[in-house]
Amino acid sequence: MSESTRTPDDAPAPSSEVLDRLARILAARREADPERSYVARLFARGNDAILKKIGEEATETVMAAKDGVAERIVAETADLWFHCLVMLEYHGLHPDQVLGELASREGLSGLDEKASRKAAAREAADADSDRLPGGRPQGPEGEAGE
Amino acid sequence: MSESTRTPDDAPAPSSEVLDRLARILAARREADPERSYVARLFARGNDAILKKIGEEATETVMAAKDGVAERIVAETADLWFHCLVMLEYHGLHPDQVLGELASREGLSGLDEKASRKAAAREAADADSDRLPGGRPQGPEGEAGE
Amino acid sequence: MSESTRTPDDAPAPSSEVLDRLARILAARREADPERSYVARLFARGNDAILKKIGEEATETVMAAKDGVAERIVAETADLWFHCLVMLEYHGLHPDQVLGELASREGLSGLDEKASRKAAAREAADADSDRLPGGRPQGPEGEAGE
Amino acid sequence: MSESTRTPDDAPAPSSEVLDRLARILAARREADPERSYVARLFARGNDAILKKIGEEATETVMAAKDGVAERIVAETADLWFHCLVMLEYHGLHPDQVLGELASREGLSGLDEKASRKAAAREAADADSDRLPGGRPQGPEGEAGE
Repeated sequence: MSESTRTPDDAPAPSSEVLDRLARILAARREADPERSYVARLFARGNDAILKKIGEEATETVMAAKDGVAERIVAETADLWFHCLVMLEYHGLHPDQVLGELASREGLSGLDEKASRKAAAREAADADSDRLPGGRPQGPEGEAGE
Repeated sequence: MSESTRTPDDAPAPSSEVLDRLARILAARREADPERSYVARLFARGNDAILKKIGEEATETVMAAKDGVAERIVAETADLWFHCLVMLEYHGLHPDQVLGELASREGLSGLDEKASRKAAAREAADADSDRLPGGRPQGPEGEAGE
Repeated sequence: MSESTRTPDDAPAPSSEVLDRLARILAARREADPERSYVARLFARGNDAILKKIGEEATETVMAAKDGVAERIVAETADLWFHCLVMLEYHGLHPDQVLGELASREGLSGLDEKASRKAAAREAADADSDRLPGGRPQGPEGEAGE
Repeated sequence: MSESTRTPDDAPAPSSEVLDRLARILAARREADPERSYVARLFARGNDAILKKIGEEATETVMAAKDGVAERIVAETADLWFHCLVMLEYHGLHPDQVLGELASREGLSGLDEKASRKAAAREAADADSDRLPGGRPQGPEGEAGE
């Protein structure tokens, strides 16, 4: 997003407001007729039905990223985040709380290095340890990727 | 990113800019020393290592939402989205593309009802069908939730 | 199962007894010293730690099957089943109960066709419906696979 | 496998043969009419459709184990293993290969302790490290479970 499009003066809403707008729409849908709204129906089916969708969409995101097709990665990630928004609303939470949590970690510049020293110990151990008794080393993770 | 560049008018930055800021930080981390940065190390380990984290964090989000503890739901969703951002950067994508995709579905007001008619057919079939030959009906999904 | 009952004629035990043998070993490990046993430690960490492993291993199984490398598919499926066995033991259940459930569905010969008629309705609806308001058709699923 | 070969002495077949019998049935289903068989249809839809089911069923297994209801844990684990069998057959693999892999780890009695020493290092690092820069400690995993 360029600095100029972020302007408050009649420019199109920054895409970053999308989460907030979606959250409002989802909250409104909660009262909608389950017969006529997918989202209302999902709310009516409850927590497990919503969480099952998160598991499904996470799997599809992983598969899309394995295939490396940009359009599908974007679409599946959108599906995953959408159902996270439904889950948040179901529990009376707002995406701003998630963004706030992310922001608090955002001092990444400094924290990344500090956290890194701790994580390094874990990963070093990881690298030469079997996850499972008798299992093979964590080969796939050690790969350089695609 | 310093406070001053973030908020020229001293107003708090909209939390909704967090995704963009994080994307920039992650992009910069890509060049960082894997010895000193968790994120650089994750990039170095590659696609499978990043996707494994998405699977892990999705599972933890589901478990937190089963427990219904707000603080953990927010924290686990943040972990899930964070690793989605890492995955997007790994594939040269930006969260704005995901938000754009969500925005295009956001005409939810109208589309929800249209999509709903199609989805209703599927779910009606769902409701009286076994998922698996010989399996039991999809009881859990039919529940009203918690 | 003791060696003597397992192989009265000194023949190798059928590999199919593996699940039962593993279940016995896991049950015994429950009392082991968490300092010296991975499994004992997993039991000590509790339900969430075990379930997190199931989510991880399911993701790794999916990634291995995307890559189509036989050896990794077998190893990751073994990891997944192993942690399912740990989970079953944690809840006082035995793999024979799962096998019994599978056997009851095994009359697949007959039931598959019956279930198929119901499932067909769902999938037909699936095929021409968006999962998500405004989303794209379920392209990936409609593909003929690899 | 016919009834006669399965139970020469008219005793109930060991439940442990279930995986092999199911594998044979699934292999036969591969040639069946997709219009009339759920399994044939799943094969026809291909790798991604099968793997999506593994992601779904793993999520449902996790949710059932969070609820701790024995009957549902058994049923969901059966669903998960069933779709693993479909995946194995799709890739020309047999459950005996997975059982063989598990058996090779089964010398768990000895290996568990050896592997444990390595894993302990990782977990010790885990315990006092943040998974994510700025994130909270891995609280949920440290819990004693339910």
